[in-house]
Amino acid sequence: MMASISPTLERADSNLPESLERLFDLVRIPSISTDPAYKADCRRAAEWLASELQGLGFEASVRDTPGHPMVVAHHASGHPGAPHVLFYGHYDVQPVDPLNLWEVSPFEPSIKDIGGGRKVITGRGTSDDKGQLMTFVEACRAYKETHGSLPCAVTILFEGEEESGSPSLKPFLEANAAELKADYALVCDTGMWDSETPAISAGLRGLVGEEITITAADRDLHSGMFGGAAANPVHSLSAILAGLHDAEGRVTLDGFYDGVEETPSQIKAAWETLGQTAEKFLGEIGLSVPSGEKGRSVLELVWARPTAEVNGIWGGYTGEGFKTVIAAQASAKVSFRLVGKQDPAKIREAFRAYVTSKIPSDCSVEFHAHGGSPAIQLPYDSALLNTAKMALSDEWPKPAVVIGMGGSIPIVGDFQKMLGMESLLVGFALSDDRIHSPNEKYDLQSFHKGIRSWIRILDALAA
Amino acid sequence: MMASISPTLERADSNLPESLERLFDLVRIPSISTDPAYKADCRRAAEWLASELQGLGFEASVRDTPGHPMVVAHHASGHPGAPHVLFYGHYDVQPVDPLNLWEVSPFEPSIKDIGGGRKVITGRGTSDDKGQLMTFVEACRAYKETHGSLPCAVTILFEGEEESGSPSLKPFLEANAAELKADYALVCDTGMWDSETPAISAGLRGLVGEEITITAADRDLHSGMFGGAAANPVHSLSAILAGLHDAEGRVTLDGFYDGVEETPSQIKAAWETLGQTAEKFLGEIGLSVPSGEKGRSVLELVWARPTAEVNGIWGGYTGEGFKTVIAAQASAKVSFRLVGKQDPAKIREAFRAYVTSKIPSDCSVEFHAHGGSPAIQLPYDSALLNTAKMALSDEWPKPAVVIGMGGSIPIVGDFQKMLGMESLLVGFALSDDRIHSPNEKYDLQSFHKGIRSWIRILDALAA
Repeated sequence: MMASISPTLERADSNLPESLERLFDLVRIPSISTDPAYKADCRRAAEWLASELQGLGFEASVRDTPGHPMVVAHHASGHPGAPHVLFYGHYDVQPVDPLNLWEVSPFEPSIKDIGGGRKVITGRGTSDDKGQLMTFVEACRAYKETHGSLPCAVTILFEGEEESGSPSLKPFLEANAAELKADYALVCDTGMWDSETPAISAGLRGLVGEEITITAADRDLHSGMFGGAAANPVHSLSAILAGLHDAEGRVTLDGFYDGVEETPSQIKAAWETLGQTAEKFLGEIGLSVPSGEKGRSVLELVWARPTAEVNGIWGGYTGEGFKTVIAAQASAKVSFRLVGKQDPAKIREAFRAYVTSKIPSDCSVEFHAHGGSPAIQLPYDSALLNTAKMALSDEWPKPAVVIGMGGSIPIVGDFQKMLGMESLLVGFALSDDRIHSPNEKYDLQSFHKGIRSWIRILDALAA
Repeated sequence: MMASISPTLERADSNLPESLERLFDLVRIPSISTDPAYKADCRRAAEWLASELQGLGFEASVRDTPGHPMVVAHHASGHPGAPHVLFYGHYDVQPVDPLNLWEVSPFEPSIKDIGGGRKVITGRGTSDDKGQLMTFVEACRAYKETHGSLPCAVTILFEGEEESGSPSLKPFLEANAAELKADYALVCDTGMWDSETPAISAGLRGLVGEEITITAADRDLHSGMFGGAAANPVHSLSAILAGLHDAEGRVTLDGFYDGVEETPSQIKAAWETLGQTAEKFLGEIGLSVPSGEKGRSVLELVWARPTAEVNGIWGGYTGEGFKTVIAAQASAKVSFRLVGKQDPAKIREAFRAYVTSKIPSDCSVEFHAHGGSPAIQLPYDSALLNTAKMALSDEWPKPAVVIGMGGSIPIVGDFQKMLGMESLLVGFALSDDRIHSPNEKYDLQSFHKGIRSWIRILDALAA
């Protein structure tokens, strides 16, 4: 039986001003990982974090990689037998341009009252991901200061290349698998459902990217001289792309739905309670009619169903005015979002077979692969998830929901495949945080209640 | 009864060296109409022509327009009651860039032996259209020198803006309709079937150009966050373009084939004798399978059938690599080649109605018209055409054929509509003349036998 959690939560409350000062210190370091000009700043951020963690009693070090360094830290648990968690976050941030669109300086953090009782922390990285990772560090601090120990054994991994494709991550996980392996991974790089409703992300769609170029004649043709007799590759391409979906909005590729499972009905029912509608979801972007598979809610469509989308198309004359040309080539970039156990290699193969079957016999097609990763479906009802769900529900005004994510977080797959660990994706960002854009912010409440949430989760996991 | 034509033809033969010198003089004037730097040269070419025609006894003048001047010349017939013809050609030429691809200087004409018994005249405008218009002038010269008169009343109209869209032509025709009206128009700006077979062009396809832009969301979207729920305008566009043709290659627009008549069977039979095949026609451009309406020859497809072609398409991310974006907009340029009595306005309307009917209710579409002109179908068996056909067949190794043209020559429509004149399209260019490209040439035989051809045609028309 654990001691009451109240003193720790109170400690987090009273620590808040200093917790903010520490976050500000970290935000002030312009650790932009894509820009070589900020290489030293990235290292400085890593060193700052290692030093903070050492101050908390972690065995922490800055670990070199071919790119920006990792920070790895370990702390034993005060409770023998308590689980061992690996916490992941990233200290690097996106570039800040266009700088002239910032209302405040990106690396001079401040607290701003935005009305309606909301205060926000401004600055690049406040939400993605410095503010989020510091919720965990400050949770550890409050726990340590109250109990002299931590409820779980904690390993921390902070990456400095998340915003530039994580080139060093896999080799690092591989080389340090034994050291990094824990019972669970805690990943804090996601968002809330809304400002009152915490969320755990359980499904992350995978992705297959393909670029195709169809070649017809060996040169661009005059449509007056050849139109009506010569193959037009834009016509083939249009027919191919139009044929990717049937009238029900389903993707037509052979075997496309192999490995796609229905979302459990209790999860769908929970999503219903969120009050999301097509009108609301699409209304924000100027649309109103769901375009995908018929008979499914928008949340199901973007969280739990696979898709085929054309991301780019080009061919022929695209400038001002008109040119009656029949292009020699036409191209498209097409991506598939995957769910469940869909196999990226099989989807790619089915797509290529479909395209090839539709190409006129005197035309040719070239394919270029752009990445492929399977979906990650975390359990909807594991002990880890249910524990976190209750802990979060205790902290926030509304109960936690388990949601899907339209995009992917590759680290979660790596943890699963390389370290055999289930991940828990909990984060406190809000959809209006403007991550990657000018005027990034993080709600003061996200930071404060985020710290308190981690205290509750760690405490519950140890119980 | 006319006198024997032989002395006139012989005169043309003996004149040839001087005829060439005169053509060279004209080619040396760089009358590039699109480039303001050559404005004075355009006028110089007009003045040179007017002076040549005055020397032949024409009442000739350079007539100002808001752009480059016209040359108008008149000469009475020596035979009262002979028909009055209006001859049209243009003295302006295309720009010459890229200059480094020219093997000879574009404005220093020369005779070059290209082997196989062929000699060619090199230089910009030798084929399009200075060499062609000079065949008529030199034909008049030989006739005048032999007979002291011309067989028909001849009005000549030389334009200086054909290569830059003919902006002054319509107003000029309107303002000078009474002066320019004749019994027939003779237009020398087309080609032979091959180097042994003269051709009269009878069908010229019309054109309707449309640009469409489909707008879905009010901004570009992340396909992870919105894919599967938000409308993708590239999908709508692809479906719309794919739906323009049915499985038989026919255009699906409502009423599209209204006004399209079958080519007379004797004309089709004549085309059969030309020995053109899909393999040959398409083989030259690296293709082999006719793509348009099934069951029709390639010549019929490009000369006598209407088409729908996508000339350009673009939307989303088209750069290097991959971006999982759902574009806010997607666009295409689409053109329709028209034949027979198809109405450009109705075709445009049918296209817009079709597109509009296919747009999801929360998306919008904008249309932008790019020109529209009806097809011109000259009679396949008028007296004018049959007379010219016989005259040409007498001159060349093989009988003349009546062909279609995939593209359009707007002047022919203007002559028809504004001056009520039937046109005869006869020209001696060959498909390898590289008009509009570096190393333009005109076969010496085209020039020589072209002069002789006009002598025969004028003589036959007067008979």
